[in-house]
Amino acid sequence: MKGAITAAAGFRAAGVAAGIKQDAPDLAVLVADSACSAAAVFTTNCAQAAPVLVSREHIASGRARAVIVNSGCANAATGAGGLEDAREMAALTAQAVGCQAAEVLVASTGVIGVRLPMEKLRAAIPRAAAGLAREGGADAARAIMTTDTRPKEVLVEFVVAGRTARLGGMAKGAGMIAPHMATMLAFLTTDAGVAPSLLQSALARAAELSFNRITVDGDTSTNDTAIVLASGACGAPSIERPGPDLDAFRAALNDACQRLALMLIRDGEGTTRVAEVRVEGALSHGDAERVARTVAESPLVKTALFGGDANWGRILGAVGRAGVKLDIERVDIFLGDVWVCEAGAAREYDESLATDAFTRDTVLIRVRLNAGAEAESIWTCDLSHGYVDINGSYRS
Amino acid sequence: MKGAITAAAGFRAAGVAAGIKQDAPDLAVLVADSACSAAAVFTTNCAQAAPVLVSREHIASGRARAVIVNSGCANAATGAGGLEDAREMAALTAQAVGCQAAEVLVASTGVIGVRLPMEKLRAAIPRAAAGLAREGGADAARAIMTTDTRPKEVLVEFVVAGRTARLGGMAKGAGMIAPHMATMLAFLTTDAGVAPSLLQSALARAAELSFNRITVDGDTSTNDTAIVLASGACGAPSIERPGPDLDAFRAALNDACQRLALMLIRDGEGTTRVAEVRVEGALSHGDAERVARTVAESPLVKTALFGGDANWGRILGAVGRAGVKLDIERVDIFLGDVWVCEAGAAREYDESLATDAFTRDTVLIRVRLNAGAEAESIWTCDLSHGYVDINGSYRS
Repeated sequence: MKGAITAAAGFRAAGVAAGIKQDAPDLAVLVADSACSAAAVFTTNCAQAAPVLVSREHIASGRARAVIVNSGCANAATGAGGLEDAREMAALTAQAVGCQAAEVLVASTGVIGVRLPMEKLRAAIPRAAAGLAREGGADAARAIMTTDTRPKEVLVEFVVAGRTARLGGMAKGAGMIAPHMATMLAFLTTDAGVAPSLLQSALARAAELSFNRITVDGDTSTNDTAIVLASGACGAPSIERPGPDLDAFRAALNDACQRLALMLIRDGEGTTRVAEVRVEGALSHGDAERVARTVAESPLVKTALFGGDANWGRILGAVGRAGVKLDIERVDIFLGDVWVCEAGAAREYDESLATDAFTRDTVLIRVRLNAGAEAESIWTCDLSHGYVDINGSYRS
Repeated sequence: MKGAITAAAGFRAAGVAAGIKQDAPDLAVLVADSACSAAAVFTTNCAQAAPVLVSREHIASGRARAVIVNSGCANAATGAGGLEDAREMAALTAQAVGCQAAEVLVASTGVIGVRLPMEKLRAAIPRAAAGLAREGGADAARAIMTTDTRPKEVLVEFVVAGRTARLGGMAKGAGMIAPHMATMLAFLTTDAGVAPSLLQSALARAAELSFNRITVDGDTSTNDTAIVLASGACGAPSIERPGPDLDAFRAALNDACQRLALMLIRDGEGTTRVAEVRVEGALSHGDAERVARTVAESPLVKTALFGGDANWGRILGAVGRAGVKLDIERVDIFLGDVWVCEAGAAREYDESLATDAFTRDTVLIRVRLNAGAEAESIWTCDLSHGYVDINGSYRS
């Protein structure tokens, strides 16, 4: 749904070209009509970009009024000067929309180690703020893109105290980090009211089930950020405690984040094919996730996926090196419905059926450890010539 | 040096085409004139191929007479039948050279999940044994190749009790695992005499400093094996305890293994450029290795290396996500001699010098953590279109 980020009542947005990139929209601003509940999760990378450091400070209050986002420059590895720049972005936005700088969250994505062109931002932020509109959501979704080939937007409706509330989101992805351009950013707005602590735990869990379940290349950005703002403008009372209303909101948030995450992986750098790696029968969730992630990040599995080669030996090899204690002689592997490996050894199967299963738009790789009852899935994409082209090309 | 595996006194070898591959040598046999000290290290993957299981049993005695190696089929994920096949390979070799099956070590490399064509091996093993010769080393080195574009051989001389001893080796690599073909195998022979327990610890350490310090794609084979045989035929007394003779042997073994490892990485699948990732100033060796490995395996660093793009932001990003406790604001990065990042932030530097440093045949990426005094290096190769071509193409 186009413009989903402003579909919930109480939000306006704009997207403009500030001149950080050449002739492309690169600055988005999102504003709530009044200060509202806010929550955020950030990259776990030790190398944290300046906007992440500033947003971490500002989100501590659990409230925010605006979000300012630029693409084309990550403002990462920029030292004390970069931190000043991120603070100035917040201050410029606060001045333009009429709030405190501490009520503004900042996000950046793009090349690492390069300072922001602040003179351009000083001109562009007031211009963007002047254009804020309920209809500005689609422009904002486009302005946060880097190597993304299309905007990623989602809208979910749910019911709070008998009233219909909306949850809209926008995200950008591509590689998990590509200093040229990249980073995963996601922004969500809802017109339900949600207490900040409940909003924070709901977002942390939703991110765990969505953005943390996808992998393009195993790299983690210095700038990854997901933010949710809850205006309370839908007319229902604010959700202040656990119960059916919170459950409905959490289900909507999980759904929206999972749909955005799948859009990210589907539009991963060079992606031609997507796979769900599902590990079942593990002793623990942690084991299941570790095995699934090892398979999902294996360059040999990812190139086989690109080639449409149902080469399950590479899957077995990745399972075996995942660092999880397991009995390889109990491991079964299925490609879609085709059972190719039983008890760690090849089965007789129809190769053409395995190839069919391995050349779908979304391939299901199912690994059964037969060790316990836990299961986890990780979504991945193939490793293609397109990935090498995008990431092997020079920055400038 | 061509034929290095038989340069040490007391060894003969042969390489023939058994018909596992189409029209290419695929079977090597290496025989000592009499049973001698032997040591081996194997893959740590939970999924261990049948030949690895058999060789583990046979090496337990610390003595061996022969090694039989095939390429084109890994005999992995082949269940009980595959284990019988590996045992039969040992028995056929024992019969042909006149020793016990338990004195024969077995290694295989190639496609996973496919049984060996035993009828072909029953014909080829006696034929190979009949052709065993002091001059057969080069044929053997060629017969163990898979996606390797050239044989890898090394010869080192050292002195034991005043006599010159030789240590020769051959290896094959390509991807760390590629069920199509691949696996790392290394074989070494020396005419020094070395007690089995000293030989085993020397090999384990040499492998740690060489084969375990390179990475093509982070994948680990089901079949990885390194074997050393020590004939004692050089005329010097056998090395039975620590001292200068053992030190000389260990230095030679480390040198030979490191040179073979560098040949493997230089001939990695699709490699156009090699890099040493050196991490200095770490609190522990473990930290240094973990950071170096994370940088060396980052797809974004590896594609930048392919593109010759001195994109150090990707290096910093990988350092930050290595899972090691570190202060990113103390991290320095050098590309060759060019200091590009100081205290976690961009320095002013000459981009053309950085590009020069990043487009050498062997690039030095130096990361200084400024946290302690330990250092480690990992050698890696770039991620190129060639890698995607080789691994994305269908097996058949």
